[in-house]
Amino acid sequence: MLYDYPRLEEKLIIDKLKTNNHEVILTNVNNKPLTIGEKITDISLIRSVSMYKALYAAALRESGGCRSINSSYTIAICGDKILTLSRLKNAGLNIPRSTVAMDAESAQVAFRGLKKPFVDKPPIGSWGRLVSLVTDNVSWRSLLEHRQMLPTQQLKVHIMQDYIEVNNRDIRAIVVGGEVLGAIYRISVGDEWRSNIALGGKPVQRRLDPILEEAAIKAAESVKGDFISVDILEDSSGTLYVNEVNGVPEFKGFMEATGIDVAGALMRFLEEVSKR
Amino acid sequence: MLYDYPRLEEKLIIDKLKTNNHEVILTNVNNKPLTIGEKITDISLIRSVSMYKALYAAALRESGGCRSINSSYTIAICGDKILTLSRLKNAGLNIPRSTVAMDAESAQVAFRGLKKPFVDKPPIGSWGRLVSLVTDNVSWRSLLEHRQMLPTQQLKVHIMQDYIEVNNRDIRAIVVGGEVLGAIYRISVGDEWRSNIALGGKPVQRRLDPILEEAAIKAAESVKGDFISVDILEDSSGTLYVNEVNGVPEFKGFMEATGIDVAGALMRFLEEVSKR
Amino acid sequence: MLYDYPRLEEKLIIDKLKTNNHEVILTNVNNKPLTIGEKITDISLIRSVSMYKALYAAALRESGGCRSINSSYTIAICGDKILTLSRLKNAGLNIPRSTVAMDAESAQVAFRGLKKPFVDKPPIGSWGRLVSLVTDNVSWRSLLEHRQMLPTQQLKVHIMQDYIEVNNRDIRAIVVGGEVLGAIYRISVGDEWRSNIALGGKPVQRRLDPILEEAAIKAAESVKGDFISVDILEDSSGTLYVNEVNGVPEFKGFMEATGIDVAGALMRFLEEVSKR
Amino acid sequence: MLYDYPRLEEKLIIDKLKTNNHEVILTNVNNKPLTIGEKITDISLIRSVSMYKALYAAALRESGGCRSINSSYTIAICGDKILTLSRLKNAGLNIPRSTVAMDAESAQVAFRGLKKPFVDKPPIGSWGRLVSLVTDNVSWRSLLEHRQMLPTQQLKVHIMQDYIEVNNRDIRAIVVGGEVLGAIYRISVGDEWRSNIALGGKPVQRRLDPILEEAAIKAAESVKGDFISVDILEDSSGTLYVNEVNGVPEFKGFMEATGIDVAGALMRFLEEVSKR
Repeated sequence: MLYDYPRLEEKLIIDKLKTNNHEVILTNVNNKPLTIGEKITDISLIRSVSMYKALYAAALRESGGCRSINSSYTIAICGDKILTLSRLKNAGLNIPRSTVAMDAESAQVAFRGLKKPFVDKPPIGSWGRLVSLVTDNVSWRSLLEHRQMLPTQQLKVHIMQDYIEVNNRDIRAIVVGGEVLGAIYRISVGDEWRSNIALGGKPVQRRLDPILEEAAIKAAESVKGDFISVDILEDSSGTLYVNEVNGVPEFKGFMEATGIDVAGALMRFLEEVSKR
Repeated sequence: MLYDYPRLEEKLIIDKLKTNNHEVILTNVNNKPLTIGEKITDISLIRSVSMYKALYAAALRESGGCRSINSSYTIAICGDKILTLSRLKNAGLNIPRSTVAMDAESAQVAFRGLKKPFVDKPPIGSWGRLVSLVTDNVSWRSLLEHRQMLPTQQLKVHIMQDYIEVNNRDIRAIVVGGEVLGAIYRISVGDEWRSNIALGGKPVQRRLDPILEEAAIKAAESVKGDFISVDILEDSSGTLYVNEVNGVPEFKGFMEATGIDVAGALMRFLEEVSKR
Repeated sequence: MLYDYPRLEEKLIIDKLKTNNHEVILTNVNNKPLTIGEKITDISLIRSVSMYKALYAAALRESGGCRSINSSYTIAICGDKILTLSRLKNAGLNIPRSTVAMDAESAQVAFRGLKKPFVDKPPIGSWGRLVSLVTDNVSWRSLLEHRQMLPTQQLKVHIMQDYIEVNNRDIRAIVVGGEVLGAIYRISVGDEWRSNIALGGKPVQRRLDPILEEAAIKAAESVKGDFISVDILEDSSGTLYVNEVNGVPEFKGFMEATGIDVAGALMRFLEEVSKR
Repeated sequence: MLYDYPRLEEKLIIDKLKTNNHEVILTNVNNKPLTIGEKITDISLIRSVSMYKALYAAALRESGGCRSINSSYTIAICGDKILTLSRLKNAGLNIPRSTVAMDAESAQVAFRGLKKPFVDKPPIGSWGRLVSLVTDNVSWRSLLEHRQMLPTQQLKVHIMQDYIEVNNRDIRAIVVGGEVLGAIYRISVGDEWRSNIALGGKPVQRRLDPILEEAAIKAAESVKGDFISVDILEDSSGTLYVNEVNGVPEFKGFMEATGIDVAGALMRFLEEVSKR
């Protein structure tokens, strides 16, 4: 397992694997250099909080012939919301209508054509950070100016999405090895419109149904994900929109709300893979 | 064709296509927003200088069912030197021995174990920028401190490579549709050890031989590249090391040194693809 | 005269000085290194667009015993809105009620206590950039998150000011050598609430009156400014609030609206200074 | 006392003041917004680690008529090495010959004219960070490229100084209220040429002599510093070069090496000031 900052999730997985007599080699990528082409283990579980460290750890392990879970392909796609939405759309999934503006000039062009409010976000980022609800011209211009001052090219790119009325909640489903473990609602709290757990969102179990299951499984397939979570918006008419896929999923809130043993399911999947 | 800043290369390609009665739709991604899932053309030629704009343009076109050349997959791999080296290694190609350090602490660990001088570079960047030859502890620590102050996670990551004695030149080969068009030496000038054209490197024709051709073709395959250039180091014993692959290749210097009509070869490849 | 990018203003000043047989040495600080302690001229006129280049140019000239106009003291104060407001307040001038939050946590504390809408801006910046009108919690949180991602400590600091109802205009007065040359309204256009010329604001002459003159002169004195412009807000009751002082003033719009020969007035001031 | 991250120094000062029955109000500027013009105390001791937070805290307290120690003037000058060197030179002090280049182009011009090795540093920064010894063209170009990628204008500015042969040590003297408390050598360790304590430098007492005392006192005066430390280089011939002044001095190492009660001396100075 490669990680940077061990969270509860990492501890649970390690416990589960060790309790079941699996050999676990822990590598903190912050203090251990990795050599391209080196083969250390058969399977590498990638659990770094930093997306780029996760991506590189996966690619470096693959370069030595190891199977990374998730693969560098999956992490690269899921780590970038434009790449994710493109793959989801390609796979025939329903997504919120999304326009991409590479810089401020094209964002201004797109702004004029969009119904307000709309959602604006950069392709990179976790925990809902920089995901903004744009209601009017004044806050839009402030947002536009701030984005242009951000220090990377990617953070200057705008994904501008139709705002889906979701009744203060979205759905998160976890998929392991092509099977949906379960789903939760994340319910936004107070005057925060976003439902991310990091922003105070409360996890509550959501029953699975065939349409939700199919969406989650197709989403996982579209990014070739072994162990992923899928964020889905459900409007008042019940229509589902797949919006994001997480390549290094957190599952603390999910576990609390559903009682599902995610670490155990992951372990069984790793056992299967190692037998192939 | 999607571009941001039209260079000589873009103008040559457009001229060639128009002269031969092909319909060309030009899209400047800086002032035109792109919608996910929109189908505009059958083939999109991606020619933006900015790597991220190229990547997103390719992915957005693919999301509508279009064939991007190069694909977003190829551009994502080639735009990142760690991903490229990992794929090259995976494909069995000879690369310079390369260690990756995710941050300053692991870079310091790697430093101790490396023969000096060595080459240090971040995974992202063009034209040789930030590619440094590290000879001693004093310049290394200065480099390490500067890297940590750079504004993105990726620029803080170190690729540390064996320095290959190359006699002041490297090789660049261009591959279109699985065939090697030709190759040049780029000869470094004055006291600049890097041979990038942008740093004053002089392009001189290099004859093809079967070993070079095979390396270039395998490199292109390893990143699934349709139209790419490959940077290869050749040491005093004649051993080749594939080092980088460019997903949006510049070819002005190549053309001048070899007289090869790159735009024409590209056009013929596009014609073939459109017939499939 | 030290400059970086010559604007119309710089050309007018140079013309005026040369036409009147003054010797002018032009130094582009972008391509000429400056040595500490070197004496080049008696008076240095600082006209660089970049605030830090202006500040350093002034300090370097002063280190050689030269008189800089404006002085590095004035440029340092005027280049930072917190330092300016502090000096203005100290001098007994009326300013908009202003709270400073050094980071996101204290900004959140301040937010709760402020009447909405209020104005939020970082201490550094020109042309109204990043000056935001905060009306509600949703746009505030987006702003807060963006500010924290900006790449410098200073841009993470919040100045939070009472919003003064100004009837879509503010006042700009120019002071040279302790005398007010004149004043303009800058009238904001369309749905842009800010009246900066760079944001489309229209300059219109504003007659001087003793209260305005006194405020402008005291503002100049409070920052020890030789040649400055003062931004003043006037509410519906006619109360004036001094808000910003510019240490390297632009005056194209001022000149067009008033017909006042700013370059000529500046020259006469320089002549006086050189006689002392 | 205004602070952000309390270090040993802050704790010692607070202890000393409280033990002697002085009323101390502690303000953490990270969680408390400050209002311009507010008067809280008669004297504000500024002890924030962040230079900009220290600067703003001082200015904000001064705006309410309070005496800040150090003043915002002193902190602004000492927080910027170009402003400091300019004031030192102006005061007739001996400084290392220093050239300032505002960007890469002028830095390249300056490079050609300088004897190697030389010292290159940006105007902003503590603990020796980014202070580089440039020995040759290859490491210089790497440095130049890295500097241009740093995220702020100030970090792109180069101070290029003659390298003074100092026998692996520099001198640090502390001045309170116009009197020199004492001095230490900071001795650099191993292959680190810089002697900053943060880089492993070892503090050793250095006896005072009239020339050193005079330099330290004049340096404090040149920046109007109440409580500052002065960094001085001494070459093999015994010539002193004043190089930096610290406006929020750390004194843990100084105290250990000399046994001098810095907090006590500071308290006595504060008592004197409050009596005036």
